[in-house]
Amino acid sequence: MKVAVGVDIGGTNTVIGIVDQNGKVILKSNIPTPGHGDFERYTADLSNSIKKLISEAREQIKNLKVMGIGIGAPIGNYHTGTIDFATNLSFKGRLPVVESVRRHFAEMPVIVLTNDANAAAMGEMMYGGAKGMRDFVMFTLGTGVGSGIVANGNLVIGADGLAGEIGHSVLIPGGRVCSCGFAGHLEAYCSAPGMKKTALEMLDQNRNSDSLISNIPESELDSKMIFEAAEKGDKIALEVFEKTGEWLGMGLANTVYHLSPGAIFLFGGPTAAGDLLFKPAKACMEKNLLSIYKNKIDILPSKLNPGDAAITGASAMVWKELEK
Amino acid sequence: MKVAVGVDIGGTNTVIGIVDQNGKVILKSNIPTPGHGDFERYTADLSNSIKKLISEAREQIKNLKVMGIGIGAPIGNYHTGTIDFATNLSFKGRLPVVESVRRHFAEMPVIVLTNDANAAAMGEMMYGGAKGMRDFVMFTLGTGVGSGIVANGNLVIGADGLAGEIGHSVLIPGGRVCSCGFAGHLEAYCSAPGMKKTALEMLDQNRNSDSLISNIPESELDSKMIFEAAEKGDKIALEVFEKTGEWLGMGLANTVYHLSPGAIFLFGGPTAAGDLLFKPAKACMEKNLLSIYKNKIDILPSKLNPGDAAITGASAMVWKELEK
Repeated sequence: MKVAVGVDIGGTNTVIGIVDQNGKVILKSNIPTPGHGDFERYTADLSNSIKKLISEAREQIKNLKVMGIGIGAPIGNYHTGTIDFATNLSFKGRLPVVESVRRHFAEMPVIVLTNDANAAAMGEMMYGGAKGMRDFVMFTLGTGVGSGIVANGNLVIGADGLAGEIGHSVLIPGGRVCSCGFAGHLEAYCSAPGMKKTALEMLDQNRNSDSLISNIPESELDSKMIFEAAEKGDKIALEVFEKTGEWLGMGLANTVYHLSPGAIFLFGGPTAAGDLLFKPAKACMEKNLLSIYKNKIDILPSKLNPGDAAITGASAMVWKELEK
Repeated sequence: MKVAVGVDIGGTNTVIGIVDQNGKVILKSNIPTPGHGDFERYTADLSNSIKKLISEAREQIKNLKVMGIGIGAPIGNYHTGTIDFATNLSFKGRLPVVESVRRHFAEMPVIVLTNDANAAAMGEMMYGGAKGMRDFVMFTLGTGVGSGIVANGNLVIGADGLAGEIGHSVLIPGGRVCSCGFAGHLEAYCSAPGMKKTALEMLDQNRNSDSLISNIPESELDSKMIFEAAEKGDKIALEVFEKTGEWLGMGLANTVYHLSPGAIFLFGGPTAAGDLLFKPAKACMEKNLLSIYKNKIDILPSKLNPGDAAITGASAMVWKELEK
């Protein structure tokens, strides 16, 4: 049985999974990302954990063949195999991820790195709702807004390996400050913190409202609480989703003009709100599209298992590499 | 000697060229686009003109082998081989370009259609400044703003064959009305008519200026005259280019966040202004880019011969098809 290892390097935890060719996670484990000393020690510990997990999998499954290791990380660069100047990791500078892991797996057919949203897009294509699609875009809504682009059946990585940062394109010139410091980016409006900001702005404009979220301390409020309030019919919470969807739809239209995708997939916490987010996003995207594009492009929820999407996506990169 | 036929279908004229594998135009001719009666008669006349040109070329060159016919046209759809509801052509509805031409060239190895900006990008890759590049974007500045995207060494066509309409992405929400009727599109600011509009707005704000362009009747003013005034140091004309460049740079940054191209090529009349346009575009693009993208992406003038770019670009599609 052929499997791939998927690794998701996050700021707090690194998750490791053994994934089969259908995207099923056979086994998984994790190690903390910080606290190992330098980056070489971290990758040594990570490699040991991968080896241990492979051994465990071998005990369960006869003839297990590990075809490669796919690694996803914010700003992970496919071309160079490095993570450069990550703001969410304790390691500094340019981190030679592939080179370091390769030292521990000399015989592994494939070791590949990419950013987490690209990995998610690969996962969607291999195991999820984008099976058989050759042109689609995936947006991951969370702390930030990530994106992964597939065109002509291949991941669009770009000359510098940095394609798919659509969250940082300008939605409203001179608008809200983004996590990156620039003004008006899509991410500043459509990420989970962006939704919180929208809620706070709306509460500020409606000081006498009896909104359910008006009682939540500002420091505790998050997009999940806004969703819960919206589910109870809270007017301001509903408006937050409506407005977030509209902003997202505006941004998606710009992406359609670039790429003419067959579908757009949304992934991440806020997508649990379903129609509350998808309906205004679709309506606003359509409103901003020329007639030649209208009513052709679905906005769909990701079919990846949210808990495992990062590792299954990373593992999908391995199968894609082996096709080459 | 292997050659390809390049055809450029414009609203007024259809230009036909016999082009060699280095992008050199061996022979060219043209027929008016309207005035043939229905679309079938037009393609019959076009096909006869192509045959005639091939015969003439055979007289000049021994062993001439025509490998295919590449056709470029606004909103020409690669997937379907049709032009759908063109606003600039006298023919109505869905025009089956490839099917109709194929009737006259049963044995031709390749007959392929795409939109004119995509064709220009292919020309740049095959014969121009993008030789050897696998990831770049080309913008054509003229009556509109077209674009062609190359990623992973292939043209990005999109699920519906309509990728690369970046000119219609929103630059300034609620801004200037575009030729398509929507507000705030990049094209409304950076096309030749957009530049004229900018000039008129600036003249309106500076009623007492002695600008050289203030004496030109509004109906006659065009981007070339603005360029000529700018060359003479005219302050308002210079400002028009500065501002156009800034808007373009803003738009290019959004494209970089999508695609991380190795370079961006600019083609078309306004690019003759050189640094007057390229410098503010580059500066404004850089200003809008995250540090991981900075100082990596050149904005370059197209190396295609302006007069022949449409037919050489269309011919380039043939070689690309033959690679498949």
